[in-house]
Amino acid sequence: MAKKYVYTFGGGRADGKAEMKNLLGGKGANLAEMARIGIPVPAGFTITTEVCTAFYENKQKYPAGLEKQVKEALVWVEKQMEAKFGDAENPLLISCRSGARVSMPGMMDTVLNIGLNDKTIKGLIEKTGNPRFAYDAYRRFVSMYGDVVMGVKAGGKEEDPFEVILESRKKKKGVHLDLELDTDDLKWLVKEFKALIKRRLKVSFPENPDDQLWGAIGAVFESWMVPRAISYREIHHIPGDWGTAVNVQSMVFGNMGDDSATGVAFTRDPATGENYFYGEYLTNAQGEDVVAGIRTPQPINRSKPVTKGVKTLEDEMPRLYKQLSDIRDKLEKHYHEMEDVEFTIQQGKLWMLQTRTGKRTAAASIKIAVDMVKEKLITKEEAVARIDPDQLDQLLHPTFDDKAKRNVIAKGLPASPGAAVGQVVFSAEDAEELATAGHKVILVRIETSPDDIRGMNAAQGILTARGGMTSHAAVVARGMGKCCVAGASDLHVDYKKEAFIANGKTVKKMDWISLDGSRGEVILGQVPTSQPQLSGDFGKVMKWVDQIRRLKVRTNADTPHDAKVARDFGAEGIGLCRTEHMFFEGERIDAVREMILAEDTKGRQKALAKILPMQRKDFIGIFRAMDGLPVTIRTLDPPLHEFLPHTDAEIKDLAQKLGVKPAQIKDKVESLSEANPMLGHRGCRLGIMYPEITAMQARAIMEAACKVQQEGKKVFPEIMIPLVSHVNELAAQRALVEEVAEEVMAKKKVKVKYMIGTMIELPRAALTADEIAQQADFFSFGTNDLTQTTFGLSRDDAGKFLPDYVKDGILERDPFVVLDQDGVGQLVRIGVEKGRKVKTNLKVGICGEHGGEPHSVEFCHNVKMDYVSCSPYRVPIARLSAAHAVINEKKKITRDV
Amino acid sequence: MAKKYVYTFGGGRADGKAEMKNLLGGKGANLAEMARIGIPVPAGFTITTEVCTAFYENKQKYPAGLEKQVKEALVWVEKQMEAKFGDAENPLLISCRSGARVSMPGMMDTVLNIGLNDKTIKGLIEKTGNPRFAYDAYRRFVSMYGDVVMGVKAGGKEEDPFEVILESRKKKKGVHLDLELDTDDLKWLVKEFKALIKRRLKVSFPENPDDQLWGAIGAVFESWMVPRAISYREIHHIPGDWGTAVNVQSMVFGNMGDDSATGVAFTRDPATGENYFYGEYLTNAQGEDVVAGIRTPQPINRSKPVTKGVKTLEDEMPRLYKQLSDIRDKLEKHYHEMEDVEFTIQQGKLWMLQTRTGKRTAAASIKIAVDMVKEKLITKEEAVARIDPDQLDQLLHPTFDDKAKRNVIAKGLPASPGAAVGQVVFSAEDAEELATAGHKVILVRIETSPDDIRGMNAAQGILTARGGMTSHAAVVARGMGKCCVAGASDLHVDYKKEAFIANGKTVKKMDWISLDGSRGEVILGQVPTSQPQLSGDFGKVMKWVDQIRRLKVRTNADTPHDAKVARDFGAEGIGLCRTEHMFFEGERIDAVREMILAEDTKGRQKALAKILPMQRKDFIGIFRAMDGLPVTIRTLDPPLHEFLPHTDAEIKDLAQKLGVKPAQIKDKVESLSEANPMLGHRGCRLGIMYPEITAMQARAIMEAACKVQQEGKKVFPEIMIPLVSHVNELAAQRALVEEVAEEVMAKKKVKVKYMIGTMIELPRAALTADEIAQQADFFSFGTNDLTQTTFGLSRDDAGKFLPDYVKDGILERDPFVVLDQDGVGQLVRIGVEKGRKVKTNLKVGICGEHGGEPHSVEFCHNVKMDYVSCSPYRVPIARLSAAHAVINEKKKITRDV
Repeated sequence: MAKKYVYTFGGGRADGKAEMKNLLGGKGANLAEMARIGIPVPAGFTITTEVCTAFYENKQKYPAGLEKQVKEALVWVEKQMEAKFGDAENPLLISCRSGARVSMPGMMDTVLNIGLNDKTIKGLIEKTGNPRFAYDAYRRFVSMYGDVVMGVKAGGKEEDPFEVILESRKKKKGVHLDLELDTDDLKWLVKEFKALIKRRLKVSFPENPDDQLWGAIGAVFESWMVPRAISYREIHHIPGDWGTAVNVQSMVFGNMGDDSATGVAFTRDPATGENYFYGEYLTNAQGEDVVAGIRTPQPINRSKPVTKGVKTLEDEMPRLYKQLSDIRDKLEKHYHEMEDVEFTIQQGKLWMLQTRTGKRTAAASIKIAVDMVKEKLITKEEAVARIDPDQLDQLLHPTFDDKAKRNVIAKGLPASPGAAVGQVVFSAEDAEELATAGHKVILVRIETSPDDIRGMNAAQGILTARGGMTSHAAVVARGMGKCCVAGASDLHVDYKKEAFIANGKTVKKMDWISLDGSRGEVILGQVPTSQPQLSGDFGKVMKWVDQIRRLKVRTNADTPHDAKVARDFGAEGIGLCRTEHMFFEGERIDAVREMILAEDTKGRQKALAKILPMQRKDFIGIFRAMDGLPVTIRTLDPPLHEFLPHTDAEIKDLAQKLGVKPAQIKDKVESLSEANPMLGHRGCRLGIMYPEITAMQARAIMEAACKVQQEGKKVFPEIMIPLVSHVNELAAQRALVEEVAEEVMAKKKVKVKYMIGTMIELPRAALTADEIAQQADFFSFGTNDLTQTTFGLSRDDAGKFLPDYVKDGILERDPFVVLDQDGVGQLVRIGVEKGRKVKTNLKVGICGEHGGEPHSVEFCHNVKMDYVSCSPYRVPIARLSAAHAVINEKKKITRDV
Repeated sequence: MAKKYVYTFGGGRADGKAEMKNLLGGKGANLAEMARIGIPVPAGFTITTEVCTAFYENKQKYPAGLEKQVKEALVWVEKQMEAKFGDAENPLLISCRSGARVSMPGMMDTVLNIGLNDKTIKGLIEKTGNPRFAYDAYRRFVSMYGDVVMGVKAGGKEEDPFEVILESRKKKKGVHLDLELDTDDLKWLVKEFKALIKRRLKVSFPENPDDQLWGAIGAVFESWMVPRAISYREIHHIPGDWGTAVNVQSMVFGNMGDDSATGVAFTRDPATGENYFYGEYLTNAQGEDVVAGIRTPQPINRSKPVTKGVKTLEDEMPRLYKQLSDIRDKLEKHYHEMEDVEFTIQQGKLWMLQTRTGKRTAAASIKIAVDMVKEKLITKEEAVARIDPDQLDQLLHPTFDDKAKRNVIAKGLPASPGAAVGQVVFSAEDAEELATAGHKVILVRIETSPDDIRGMNAAQGILTARGGMTSHAAVVARGMGKCCVAGASDLHVDYKKEAFIANGKTVKKMDWISLDGSRGEVILGQVPTSQPQLSGDFGKVMKWVDQIRRLKVRTNADTPHDAKVARDFGAEGIGLCRTEHMFFEGERIDAVREMILAEDTKGRQKALAKILPMQRKDFIGIFRAMDGLPVTIRTLDPPLHEFLPHTDAEIKDLAQKLGVKPAQIKDKVESLSEANPMLGHRGCRLGIMYPEITAMQARAIMEAACKVQQEGKKVFPEIMIPLVSHVNELAAQRALVEEVAEEVMAKKKVKVKYMIGTMIELPRAALTADEIAQQADFFSFGTNDLTQTTFGLSRDDAGKFLPDYVKDGILERDPFVVLDQDGVGQLVRIGVEKGRKVKTNLKVGICGEHGGEPHSVEFCHNVKMDYVSCSPYRVPIARLSAAHAVINEKKKITRDV
């Protein structure tokens, strides 16, 4: 017997269930689950993802037995729906939809109304008594099939050829809406559409319903591999071999007249998380009319204020609204989740077409999680587990300053919250190109389509002139955590002129605008931003997070201000304080340059003596801000030439200040220049050649520590030596720091508890961590440099090929963003293990950019680090990720037991 | 009871023996051994190296019990020599010499004639009846003690103050030689020397013999840590904690009149290895007169032609010469080695002062080894083990072209063979500084001293105006394998003017000269060099070497010529053929530049089509030269910007050739420039972004291979993909190469056995070698880049601190010269093991510079590589090192059993 490739559902039963997502795809599994729990679902069947995989593995051929199983399932569906596929009198129409393990909204193809032809159309007219509806379905079917299955599409900058014909008819009739066309118009369209196909392809439109069905199934499977789908999977890290399922389902129609409707809804507000039923619908319409954003839909109820004159579903069809609302309750109780549903009302009967976990903003995510704990739907741990750390990011970014003046030139829907400032572009390609070149851009489109995905990802924010809260732009932007204002209908966009007009203002390509995604405002110019205000729910969740996690979270901060911000975000110390940033500030850069240009130790010491009090002041500020928490301070790291001027004017200026000849400075600049500064004279190599620099820094740190401790505060300085490759380097610097520290403490008559440790940021340091640990009180993995050296890849130069590497699948992810666990991670693991082998109480952390990236934080947890350190705004994300690591670990243990 | 710190020897017995070198030092152990086998040795005792170590560990204090043991030993010596230390009537005089585990010629201090004072001088006069001798010994003692123990030395450019007094006396007397001074002169000198000491130090010269002895012992121990000794140990990799022993020995005198003499000898000729007794002596002189090269000594026999009128020891003292010659035989039979001895004849009685393994040239080393095998003194394996791979180097370097014209301006002794061409400098500091800056220099000195060691090491060759074949310059240069012409007495050196005059020609600083170390010629200008001619003995030894070693030796060669040279040196294949060097040649650089400047794939392909036939021709030449042997060819490695012009003139020129605007080229140069080219867009990253480059190279290789195979030769191309960090990179390049290879072979109707492999030169590649091996037929460790990335150290930039790192002991050795086994070596080991775990027959080699360095070759043997690959001239060295690895392995197994 052949393998089971086809799973039926409908009529209160199903072959499949929710847990079978990998096999049936998210949509198929949920349709099965809905059918099982008694929710009205049009009968249908799912062709499994295994068929898709087999299809691509076997030169695009279907596995044996599939055809028979589809035939049998179709017969079963016919029985359920009391109609016959291809029957001239009582025709069953079906849809064919993709459905992968995870939702890829709008990415793949769908064909509706399959089964219509010049014979069955008659049966449909008779059955519904509505020739206009029937021809409307027929013309939609022909154009959709012609486009999706047969490939008759707009080429290049050409408009959709079916749309051109449709528009020509509307123009001729002098009408605006499709609804205003009559039966004859639609009949004419069917004829013209078929003629267009014949003209383009030299073949006729298939009249045989079986051919139509298999054509549609094939098109859906093939759409798994179209470029936009591949792009989407890249962005969302979805493996290509997961494949998609195909859902074949009986059609129900929301466009059978005024007693019909179609809509989408979320069981709670996906933007705010508020606990009310939230959705939109259109009467006498098909589902894609809502999603595509061509007509602006109506709200399903009045939970939120409704524009005057607009009716809701609750007003128009109270009984059906009640039924829908009950289903909402049933779904939430069943799934313990906020669901995103599609429904259709056909001549007064409600059908549920889909349910899935609803995408939501970070704010909504937190509110829903907290509310559901209150409602005892989920546990605290489940609540924490549900919050996506990546999404949390948007909560932590600045919003527009409340007091800033706003020149609002248009209003749209608040489709995805947040603030975005950027230069206007009108195509996804421009957005990508300019963003790569370092520009901040806002992508402005009449409406977006799946082809725009990469450009949307590259943009700061998205602005559309058409479409609702569930339009493509809105859904995708929320998923990306990106600010979006949708359906700003005052906008007149002219792609050719690359400009839009709003409220009389013309905004051209490269002009600056600001978007307020929470208010739906389009603002001229650059609006200043301010710190995010976090809700009480956020605090509650983070409290739960802190109860769960084991990993400490510190911050990378070089100033008292950053330290303060990070502390407010919950940082438990500073994991990396870079002293070199302090060297650039104000007048001290002159002293630094004087030090570099000095001919001997004495000259350097003289200049360093000028820097000492300034450095000490910096540290005093930081120690005060971090009262009671540890502060890791790294000694000077960058090569000295970074501090020198490079232009002739700057050199001349400096020469004057120091009273030397410009040529002397030029000589020094030249003699210090390096072929590969990343691998050059930097890090502890500076401190070893110029011990006086390390000595000055150690003095500044310890004098500051003594002073702040004498003020009654608690200081825990951890002095960190960078770029150690051999234990002898650390031993030499350690001896030097200890000598200075003891001298300072003796003089100040204070005992400060301090530590001396090192960065592990070179492969050799990780490999010889057992030797290095003998001289170190702590390790901090500098995974930026460790990634550069392990890959032999300069971060500054990788831009020329790394994006292509990720695009072409050579590397799964950018290793500078997500820690490469296979390679760099091995060194980290070796480093931790070897270090702890000789010193069991060795404190170990990470201070590379990876310290705030969720996958990397989980890795740090798994290798048993003590802490991660990240930029202030990523501290909450790291805390959450650390909690997730514990939850995942428990799950794994449970699974393994 | 205290530990035994003092070991006596003399009178046909000894506490110690030859095997106790670590404890007694080389000199002490050999004195003991000589005494044990009945060779006449002045009685004495050795204070162990443990005392030296304890001395430095314990704040320069001696261990308890030492004083008592010294006293007892001294009493035993007094008995043996029938004289009494400090006795006014029958005084015993003693010497105090250093003696480390390995010889450090002239590096440490010696004090002679200890025990002389105003009382004992009288006894000495009475005992010898020779007041002139006695006062000569006394004045020598006072000046030596004053200098070595009390520190009265020349400061800065000042002359030796004792020498100044001596010279003033000679001038006053109108004499040239010390010998011409009479007793009163010498008496006067003693007085003046003592007065000088008193004047300088405000203390009197110590009259108490015990004080003198302990002063001398202390000075010897302290001289272990003087800068020149530390420098010498650095150059020769001698650990500081080995320490030195102190040998206290009865004085015997070669300057007691014409029946006395002193000399040094080698049991075979140290320059050629010829089997005759070779040595020099001076009558009526002390040992240091020979070594210091102040008087030119006479040969001991006529084995080599002797200048007319010069007498030999054999002529002058035939009986003693016979006794010495018998001792020579005895020593060679006992030690199975060529020995370097010091002897003194005191009033007709022969005393042996020292024996040690004789330093020798590479040629001598080989001849002696081969001869001793013939004489059945040693086995073939012992013969191989005795040849120093580092020294072999000098045999393999070019010598002067026989046909070249030579403008010989002076002749000296052929002190160390070889040819050297360089610019003249007159101080060790200049030599070091200019060599570091990239100059080739010849160090010219009147005579050299241990302070010149670093400068000698930096120079191409050494030329001295004074001193014999065993002078400091000659001994040290031979040890370094460096060309040296010594005692060129026609040379008039003027340090102040920084010039020398020879044969009427004035040669100034920075002028070019050439030295022929085998003929002792000083030649004006730069003489062209030619290939070395290797002796039959060399071939014999290398045959033994090849029988012993397991590791194959390949060469790094980019041209048929290099391939041929290396094959003649015994290379068993090419381990690295760099294709980029070919890109620079002649007109093809234009095509390469055209390729780089092309805007698209088509443009690149057009340019590559021009390069293809040239590359193919290169490979045909190489495959022919390596008929029957494998050839590893690396695909393009350096970043493309390396091929572009950089000066405005070059850019203009290229623009004209290509018919484009200079600005266009400038833009490209700028857009390709990189912050860290070493970690940039190079290696396989090029081939992945521009697959057409790899395809062209694969085509050139395979077309060449097919052609040469069709000529009846055997070709084994191994195509090597560089800079792989992730297996996917290799997989992509492998697929591309395979496709081209199969296509070419199908077209040419030939099957060539080819391999595709990769460089392992990034830490990530080593760490994920198990993954990478699945796509590789072979690994070649690129330890240059692996060292750079593992240390995070750019070879181009390390010059600013790496020398200091080695000097200060942060790193034991330069990791670019000797493979860092602790760090980089771990990655190599991981790489080999992981690679072989998934592919047991994986071929593994090394192609970094380390492939020709003896320690590194041994490491490669130990990690079970299949081959090493090195530059052509180092192939024999690698072969020898590979044999040594086997011998050492056996020894280790024997030890461990």
